[in-house]
Amino acid sequence: MGPHPAVAAIRLAVRRVLHDVLTSTPPASVPPAPAGGAPLRPLVLAACSGGADSMALASALAFEAPRLGVRAGGVTVDHGLQPGSDTRAAEVAERLRVLGLDPVESLSVAVGRDGGPEAAARDARYAALDAAAERHGAAAVLLGHTRDDQAETVLLGLARGSGIRSLSGMASASGTGNRYRRPFLGLDRQTARKACLVQSLPVWDDPHNTDPAYTRSRVRHEALPVLEKALGKGVVEALARTAQLSRDDADALDDWAATVEPSVRDESGALETAKLYALPPAVRRRVLRRAAIAAGSPAGSLFARHIEEIDRLITGWRGQGAINLPGRVAVRRQGGRLVLRQG
Amino acid sequence: MGPHPAVAAIRLAVRRVLHDVLTSTPPASVPPAPAGGAPLRPLVLAACSGGADSMALASALAFEAPRLGVRAGGVTVDHGLQPGSDTRAAEVAERLRVLGLDPVESLSVAVGRDGGPEAAARDARYAALDAAAERHGAAAVLLGHTRDDQAETVLLGLARGSGIRSLSGMASASGTGNRYRRPFLGLDRQTARKACLVQSLPVWDDPHNTDPAYTRSRVRHEALPVLEKALGKGVVEALARTAQLSRDDADALDDWAATVEPSVRDESGALETAKLYALPPAVRRRVLRRAAIAAGSPAGSLFARHIEEIDRLITGWRGQGAINLPGRVAVRRQGGRLVLRQG
Repeated sequence: MGPHPAVAAIRLAVRRVLHDVLTSTPPASVPPAPAGGAPLRPLVLAACSGGADSMALASALAFEAPRLGVRAGGVTVDHGLQPGSDTRAAEVAERLRVLGLDPVESLSVAVGRDGGPEAAARDARYAALDAAAERHGAAAVLLGHTRDDQAETVLLGLARGSGIRSLSGMASASGTGNRYRRPFLGLDRQTARKACLVQSLPVWDDPHNTDPAYTRSRVRHEALPVLEKALGKGVVEALARTAQLSRDDADALDDWAATVEPSVRDESGALETAKLYALPPAVRRRVLRRAAIAAGSPAGSLFARHIEEIDRLITGWRGQGAINLPGRVAVRRQGGRLVLRQG
Repeated sequence: MGPHPAVAAIRLAVRRVLHDVLTSTPPASVPPAPAGGAPLRPLVLAACSGGADSMALASALAFEAPRLGVRAGGVTVDHGLQPGSDTRAAEVAERLRVLGLDPVESLSVAVGRDGGPEAAARDARYAALDAAAERHGAAAVLLGHTRDDQAETVLLGLARGSGIRSLSGMASASGTGNRYRRPFLGLDRQTARKACLVQSLPVWDDPHNTDPAYTRSRVRHEALPVLEKALGKGVVEALARTAQLSRDDADALDDWAATVEPSVRDESGALETAKLYALPPAVRRRVLRRAAIAAGSPAGSLFARHIEEIDRLITGWRGQGAINLPGRVAVRRQGGRLVLRQG
């Protein structure tokens, strides 16, 4: 008798990603062989909070890795945001060791305040995961995000109203050398939970996940259930599919903008308004965004309305003055040219 | 003292559109001059349900049209779905006459069943509006959709999960020769309602709009308020901005696909898989969709999952059999070619 369908599903998802990591890992990221010894097998880490999604992930990695000649390790992050979080992290690390993962590390991080509590915790977490991956020479770090997380991310992006890139959710592979992999983006949360249950894995429910002070928690527990009620079952799947389609579309348009950009600049490198005007609006906006970033405006603070305002220097010219962008970048139209300068 | 800000806002929105209609109307759509008489001024019709949005629209058209040398008329549609709807329509027509619109018509339509009650009513309505526009030689038909309607349309499109075209909502200009214009897409419903109130215009609240049997009504009264609570005020604006950005992006990618399509066909017109493979996924998918439609598959029944399946003949070839599309179109890979045939 084979494993329970939920366990089969999480293992298949991890197996596919391990296969992909093995076939795409550049030789440099495989640790050098110790003097006189056999070459070390590549290491893949599971990032685990102790919740159902990432415990399922760690269990699947522990099962699949040896069959593919891969070493399986685990890391858990102690954000230090709740009393006793260190004990909790030590407990999760112990559970990962019980699964057979080795090495296992608990990483303590200091969460700052930049960009709000969720963004600050995320930044601290990824910095620690990056450092751990480097330290261990890991070929990949697996993350337990599910299709439900993806749907939530799309809704959060939708609320920004800043275009299709923010609808494209999380990538199945991201980070330096595509280090981060998300094997469960096509699986629902229920499957991960079920896989833990039938394997008798203890899971820990992060109280943050149900705290309505967090936007993501409100999206999960309030917005998505009501959307399902209004629009029908299948909303989560539709949002996840929107993410994939939007990502591909945004990639193609970004490439188009990158390709066309040199051709709309004159010999001195200034953007020519007549040539910009001739571009499709979607491409022109992206060229303007690239130019603003190149001039020193930070990508994260540059919103759709900024680009819209620059665009009006081209499509609605009536002698406007300079437009001020984040990062002290000023854009003005001088004759048939756009001039971007950091002050 | 000028008009109330809400009234000023609706008038400005209509004035801008009338200006655009006047500068873009081809001479052919202006009625010919009667023998020996002065040329007739162009006619613009307001489509009016009697609700606040379209009553505000009709009032703004009645005010602005004479100032721009335009004749203003009105039409209302009796869908015949409720007892007494004919009396109601006659009442709305009378209110339009009181505003000074001329000609005014009440159009009776028979609503079919195709595509569900909302789609069937919409199809019948637009067919009647098209016929009325032709009969009167109207240069444009104004529709009262607001930014709130746009946000609802984006959410409904999101639930389909079929890509960014379905996120692009309603166009500000659409139909034959861009006949349909939506001056209020940038205004919120509250402004239209306020404009009716301060002008003492009687409005009629369509019971369909609050009937939870209708998906749009559930989106309006259940989904959007909860989304606002979870994601913050500004969700409606963000959704409307998403619509505009998605529309431009989808247009650019559609153009790209149309331009590149001839280059991926061989001399006999067959699609070459090697050339398709080299395209960005976003462009390849659109080329495949175009090819499926050209082969006879009806656009409205062709979903993202169909295109995905054809795509796997190129990106995940393992000897699959023929793929059956709506409209009895079969797609198979034969050697390095895709063959699409209607059976």
